[in-house]
Amino acid sequence: MADSKVSPVPLLKDELDIVIPTIRNLDFLEMWRPFFQPYHLIIVQDGDPSKVINVPEGFDYELYNRNDINRILGPKASCISFKDSACRCFGYMVSKKKYIYTIDDDCFVAKDPSGKNINALEQHIKNLLTPATPHFFNTLYDPYREGADFVRGYPFSLREGVPTAVSHGLWLNIPDYDAPTQLVKPLERNTRYVDAVLTIPKSTLFPMCGMNLAFDRELIGPAMYFGLMGDGQPIGRYDDMWAGWCMKVICDHLGFGVKTGLPYIWHSKASNPFVNLKKEYKGIYWQEELIPFFQAVKLPAECTTVQECYIELSKQVKAKLGGIDEYFDKLADAMVTWIEAWDELNPSGSKAASQSA
Amino acid sequence: MADSKVSPVPLLKDELDIVIPTIRNLDFLEMWRPFFQPYHLIIVQDGDPSKVINVPEGFDYELYNRNDINRILGPKASCISFKDSACRCFGYMVSKKKYIYTIDDDCFVAKDPSGKNINALEQHIKNLLTPATPHFFNTLYDPYREGADFVRGYPFSLREGVPTAVSHGLWLNIPDYDAPTQLVKPLERNTRYVDAVLTIPKSTLFPMCGMNLAFDRELIGPAMYFGLMGDGQPIGRYDDMWAGWCMKVICDHLGFGVKTGLPYIWHSKASNPFVNLKKEYKGIYWQEELIPFFQAVKLPAECTTVQECYIELSKQVKAKLGGIDEYFDKLADAMVTWIEAWDELNPSGSKAASQSA
Repeated sequence: MADSKVSPVPLLKDELDIVIPTIRNLDFLEMWRPFFQPYHLIIVQDGDPSKVINVPEGFDYELYNRNDINRILGPKASCISFKDSACRCFGYMVSKKKYIYTIDDDCFVAKDPSGKNINALEQHIKNLLTPATPHFFNTLYDPYREGADFVRGYPFSLREGVPTAVSHGLWLNIPDYDAPTQLVKPLERNTRYVDAVLTIPKSTLFPMCGMNLAFDRELIGPAMYFGLMGDGQPIGRYDDMWAGWCMKVICDHLGFGVKTGLPYIWHSKASNPFVNLKKEYKGIYWQEELIPFFQAVKLPAECTTVQECYIELSKQVKAKLGGIDEYFDKLADAMVTWIEAWDELNPSGSKAASQSA
Repeated sequence: MADSKVSPVPLLKDELDIVIPTIRNLDFLEMWRPFFQPYHLIIVQDGDPSKVINVPEGFDYELYNRNDINRILGPKASCISFKDSACRCFGYMVSKKKYIYTIDDDCFVAKDPSGKNINALEQHIKNLLTPATPHFFNTLYDPYREGADFVRGYPFSLREGVPTAVSHGLWLNIPDYDAPTQLVKPLERNTRYVDAVLTIPKSTLFPMCGMNLAFDRELIGPAMYFGLMGDGQPIGRYDDMWAGWCMKVICDHLGFGVKTGLPYIWHSKASNPFVNLKKEYKGIYWQEELIPFFQAVKLPAECTTVQECYIELSKQVKAKLGGIDEYFDKLADAMVTWIEAWDELNPSGSKAASQSA
């Protein structure tokens, strides 16, 4: 598929924002400087607005704290989490760019097996600019990559692929485990560099991690709501998961693709498993009902924009998950508020048409 | 998932047969000797029965040529292809073992990135003896592998997985391309060693290649029919594809898993693209109707054995694909003959119960 290959990879410096939920680690931006300095950063401070975040010289950035969010969104600020990195989705909303890359401040530059520093952003851009193949699995992985193609038996009518909405990158060193697994395997490290990018097939759900994630804001932005977590909420650490499940069913409906695999970042620090357990434990059993719900979601053909899909999904959340806990009632309302706020800040944009009915 | 890990990997020497469709290349068995010699080989000669296949000393084998197939199956021999490597499925039928590994004679031992010879069979055994995870995608690939696990957000109720029926291995050097791609990219070689095994999600079809393939004969054997190809048939090179699509919809129905990825073999020789084009061209356009058919197949809950599923599938093939070409009418009949022959040779076996309705 030589036509679809991206070579050289465009920087997209005027079309991509990097969204970071608070920076506690001063080394973080220094380490990423060679790769991030060309881009505009949007930093969303997750906790106490009076704390100062020192951004090193030479970076172009805007910083929002809770006071800014309240000022900009007014009463609609209730949909943005406080004291939780889920607040990052505010950055998706205020961005005016086509693409978003979001990364946590404990994620550093990883090395590929040859010892070379990995430019994670460049790989995400490659992933987003080439099509995805959700309708049939290609056994040699991403068919649009240099040196690869569709294998024998892959239907020719499906080889154009579909637009890629999301690129989900992975993590070397500390794997993204839940608290129980962290507790059972405190020493496990991810040392396996799997040199692959693949499309998550249509109708298949996956756990989307927000640590190292890029997406096409114009295609799917309004579905990337990270929910209600942290201060005053009964759960945490399900923000990215929630966004991933909502996003995936909407991508499946609208005909967009989701890729996972490369690029890797180096995840430096395991979060505290005891704290995590407290945040997660309700999610761990609620999830047993959420997954069958998302696996069964059907969106009507009339929903042709992400916003319409998301509002419809919020209704189904209220109707079918409200019985689990009042939290889902509140979350369904927040989903609507999120879309209202999105449309207020993006009056003309994000009306992506569907690719298939 | 320490419990599920296989360490050390059992040889399964009394439980696995290696099925090879003709051996033209004298180096083939010598190269594989360190890995294959412990096993029983079933060689199914695809062409002229008077040609002699010289099996080197020290191998335990049985060899079937066309005369043997005719003698053993009588009129039912019509379901076994002649002058085509699709005849290999006769070997699946006469085996009395639980597992089958099948490999082509132009596939040699590959090396891993450290330069070590890859014991393909050992990796297939690992894949088959650990569960598969078709109901939810794990972003760190096979969660049962050493150093890996289920990531945050993977539902705990799905972590037991399901029995693995098929392990689909890949190829370094010559990729398994169709004739048009071979013609367009004559020099493309697969040099990328992707260190991963993953489960093909439920309801997702893939192109199953018969070059380097292992399966649990007791779980799925009767679905591994390689169809009617070669002498007297209008197509070739769709034998393994056909088996793969039939097998996958039956695995999805019965609750079994299918893995792809490691192990690699070294595929030494590209077949002639002009000859391939002649064999493939009808398949290339028929396939555009076959894939939607297989994507839409529903098997009734009453079908609880592979045989019942396969007979039901043959009826749907006749009803829904018969209109494409009379070939599918003949193929549907051959599918029934295949199951009759299978049950005749395996009177008590292969009544695998379903894992889920």
